[in-house]
Formats: sequence, structure tokens, C-alpha cells
Amino acid sequence: MRESELLAHIEARSRGLEGAGAIAVGPGDDCAVIAPAGPTLATVDQLIAGRHFDPASTTIDQIARKAVARSVSDIAAMGGTPTWGLATGCLPFGYPRADELFDRMAHWATHWGCPLAGGDIAFADGPMVLTVSVFGVPHASRGPVLRRGARPGDLLYVTGELGGSLRSGRHLMFEPRVRVGAWLCDTLGDSLHAMIDISDGLGRDAGRIGKSSGVRIEFDAERLPLAEGVREWREGMSDGEDYELLFAASPNAFVPAVCPLTGARLTWIGRVIAGDGAFVLSPGGGLHRADDVGWDHG
Amino acid sequence: MRESELLAHIEARSRGLEGAGAIAVGPGDDCAVIAPAGPTLATVDQLIAGRHFDPASTTIDQIARKAVARSVSDIAAMGGTPTWGLATGCLPFGYPRADELFDRMAHWATHWGCPLAGGDIAFADGPMVLTVSVFGVPHASRGPVLRRGARPGDLLYVTGELGGSLRSGRHLMFEPRVRVGAWLCDTLGDSLHAMIDISDGLGRDAGRIGKSSGVRIEFDAERLPLAEGVREWREGMSDGEDYELLFAASPNAFVPAVCPLTGARLTWIGRVIAGDGAFVLSPGGGLHRADDVGWDHG
Repeated sequence: MRESELLAHIEARSRGLEGAGAIAVGPGDDCAVIAPAGPTLATVDQLIAGRHFDPASTTIDQIARKAVARSVSDIAAMGGTPTWGLATGCLPFGYPRADELFDRMAHWATHWGCPLAGGDIAFADGPMVLTVSVFGVPHASRGPVLRRGARPGDLLYVTGELGGSLRSGRHLMFEPRVRVGAWLCDTLGDSLHAMIDISDGLGRDAGRIGKSSGVRIEFDAERLPLAEGVREWREGMSDGEDYELLFAASPNAFVPAVCPLTGARLTWIGRVIAGDGAFVLSPGGGLHRADDVGWDHG
Repeated sequence: MRESELLAHIEARSRGLEGAGAIAVGPGDDCAVIAPAGPTLATVDQLIAGRHFDPASTTIDQIARKAVARSVSDIAAMGGTPTWGLATGCLPFGYPRADELFDRMAHWATHWGCPLAGGDIAFADGPMVLTVSVFGVPHASRGPVLRRGARPGDLLYVTGELGGSLRSGRHLMFEPRVRVGAWLCDTLGDSLHAMIDISDGLGRDAGRIGKSSGVRIEFDAERLPLAEGVREWREGMSDGEDYELLFAASPNAFVPAVCPLTGARLTWIGRVIAGDGAFVLSPGGGLHRADDVGWDHG
């Protein structure tokens, strides 16, 4: 399929987007035109064959889903709601199912409330690279929940379970925590101080909250909600690709054990104190650095 | 350089962006936060080593410049003004100058008024793929100039000169026609009916205006403003990578031969009539299809 045929397919597929939601002019012009909607959240992420998924064992629908879900998860991590997206693909020469791949990306983007307003397609002598931007609106009253708001005295919580995501295939099926993020904003309001989604491992991402906020973070290893089949806290902190939310809330805030809207577990796993760095108290009583374990490809 | 070091470099490089212009929260969180600014133009394009530039002979500054300029040109084609951007890079394993590449992308984005609010970096076993999104505001009174507004009776004009862009190296040095596009909106207002930037060759891109507008387009081959060294109209129509603006204006509109603001040539090259397709009248009097010549990689 030539690029022009594929673009025509994508344009035809996208008819009906215009005037619905945020998109005033959709795919098929030099630019999309987005209707005004106040402050905009913006994120972009890349999904690369061989690194973020195994091309031999992953279906086209799973690839498309994960490409979109990763960026939707970033909107969730701000407490926001997705409203529109952009997607590009650089595909291996001769890739035979580009139209299906783009159909499934469009499907999942629409499913999560961020229909694709535009994109680009190209072929090259390399692995598949999908680049998805998702845009959204912050929570109406709480505003965007940044990484930089954690304060000494705050308690740290995590949604869901940690570890083994690549091994178990959960990284292809996770539900971005958009509803939980928005519900936390509804419920905690200004007592919700900082939030991040965990893609590179709890330890490393906690280090980012600590650094942004100028505070020290300490976890209790025994409190970590480990996923089935995860044997010990090191795996739970470092495996990565969890796409759960880590958040810091005022100690006065009431955080239930389960989000009543979605059924997601909410687990108290640590605290924020003055200082810097991220640490974990192991069951034996030792203190370990938490922010140098996790994904970081050199 | 590891990804985390590179991201830290990019964040440090981006300090000072926040609060200036459109960017409320810049790189370093899950999302950027963009201040409200009414309707938003959005475009995304990919720049791929070996296809859009020759990695052996192109400097890092030229690569970075072209990656940003291509998307800025799409904003120009709507008559808009760039306001912010997002950039990702998928770089070959071991690429030694990623920090310089991102510095130069940030430089050019800021130069054209669209500082980078966020991005992503990854390494893979393939060619360099840079994906740049640029966002902008439409012209305040004219609004976004789409491809779909051409009407029978309109005259067609092109900025600058056509052909030989890859051969001459102009594709690495072109100035996106932002100021010309905005000036056309200022000057022609609602008499400016449709506009596109020419990246795939005049013939093919004219076909897109024709198809979007439901009209037929005819060019006079002898009127085409060919760049130096371009021998005949077929090259001027099909070489591609011109990044000039093609626009349709009411026959009553006065379009000067030169844009007084920028010195860019404005050449009358054809007309819009009822029907469909894009054609060119050759010097010998023959009528040729114009929309099946130009770039289309299969």
C-alpha cells in the first residue's frame, strides 16, 4: 500500500470526527484545528518494536493499544481527561498491515476519549516506531497535578499492583488510570499534592517526584502491593511498565483502600520527609537507595 | 549518554520556558501544561535519516533545523503563527551527539516561535527518526486557511521558486513561509480561499486542494517560477521538498508580484475551474495530468 492510499484510508476512516468534541478540522489538511478548551495538557511517547513489545508475539491490536495507552497514562498522571491526539508511524519497508494498525490506533484513541486529529506515515529500513501525542484538559477544580507538589509529612500511595508487567503481558493490557486520577482530584482536591505514572519502575519514578519537589521519599518494602508471581520488593520496584499512579497526599486526607469508582486498590506505601533522594526500608531493616533501580537504556 | 542524563540535560536546557508565551509547565513532568489561547492549529511530521536527509553529508544543525521547519511550514500553510512544540527522537544505538541534536532542535523551535514544551528520547537499531509536532494560533481575523475553500474562478499563486530542492540543498535551508502566510491573511482576508505548503511537488499538492475543494485545477507550464538549474516544468512540478505556499485567491483580489514584508516572489501560475483533477498546459499546448507526479514512497 502506497503512502497516499494509506493516508486516504486514514482520512476516510476519520470522517465524522469534525465538530464532535475538541476537533474542529480533522485529518486531511496541513494542520488540524482544535476548538478552544482552556488550559491544555500535552504529552508524547514513542513505542518501538523490540524494545516496548516483541514483534513476533504481539498482535496489531495490542501494539496499537499500548502505543495510545502509554500517552493516555501521562494524562491520567496529571489528573486530566484526554480530549484529542496525534499519531505517527515509521514502519519497516513493505509492512503489510499499516491500514489495520492505524485503524486500531484510531479505535483506541477514540475509546479513551482522544480521537486522532492528525498524523503522518512513513516507511524506513528500521524497526516500527509509533509516536503518539495525547492532549487533555486538567481537572476542572483541582487543576493539573504536577510532580513538584509533594511536601514533608505527606503520605505516598500507589494504585493497583507492581512488578512483572512485561513477563505477565500486563504491559499490553493495562487500563490507563484516567478515572482513578480524576476521582482522586474530585475526592482529595488540594490535599492531592503530587502524582506520576510509573513507567520506569516505582523507585526511579519516585525519585522524580522527590527531585521535582525537593524532598526525600521513603518506602516500606513490606507494604508494596506486589503483582501475582512477583517474589520480592526489588522486582516490584524495578520491573517497570506498571503504568500505575504514585501520588503524595496530605496526612489529613482520607484515602480509602479501594477506589469505589473503579475497584482499583489504593495502597499506602511510604512517606515524604525533608531531605533528598528516594529510599526503601527493607524487611530486614536496611535502608536502600530506590531511585537507581529501574529502566534506563543507555 | 544514558537516557536519564539526556533528559536531565534537556530539562536544564528548557528552564526559563515556563510562564513565557504559551507554556505554563514545560519539560520534566508527565505532561506539559499549555495556557489557553483560543483555537489551536496542530501538525506533526517525521524526519527520517536516508529518506529526508543524507546522514553522511548533513550537519546536526541542518538535521535539527529541517525537522522543525517542516512542521512550522504546515502552520504557515494555514496562515497561522507557531506557539509551541513537542519533539521526539528515536536515535541509532550509541548515537554520540544526542544532546547537541536536541539543543539545536530547541534552538530552531524557539527561533520560529514554538519552544519545545516536551518530548521523548529513545534508542533503537534503525535510522534516526525525529518526530516534531508544532502548534499554533490561526490568523486573528481570517481564521485558519484550509485546503477545501478553492472555488471556480479563483486564481492560483505560488511563493518563491520550484524544483531542485534536494539537489541544491535548499531543502536544508528553506525559511518556512510563516510571515508570508500571515501577510496573505492580512492583505487578502476572505479573498484568500485555500492554501497548502508544497512538500510532495506542486502537482500532487495541487491535486489535494482540488480534491478537498471539489474543483479542477489548471496550471500554465510556462508560468512556473523554476529555481536556478531547473531545466523544465516537469522537474519544477515534481521534485518536491519546496516548502513554498500554493494558494487560491478570488480573481478580484490584488496579489502583488512580491511580498513587501519578506521579498518573496508571488507568481500567478494557474486557475480553478469546475470539475476535478489537476492538469498542466505544456508549452506545446498539450494537457497533462499534474497530480500523479511527485513524491509518494511505496
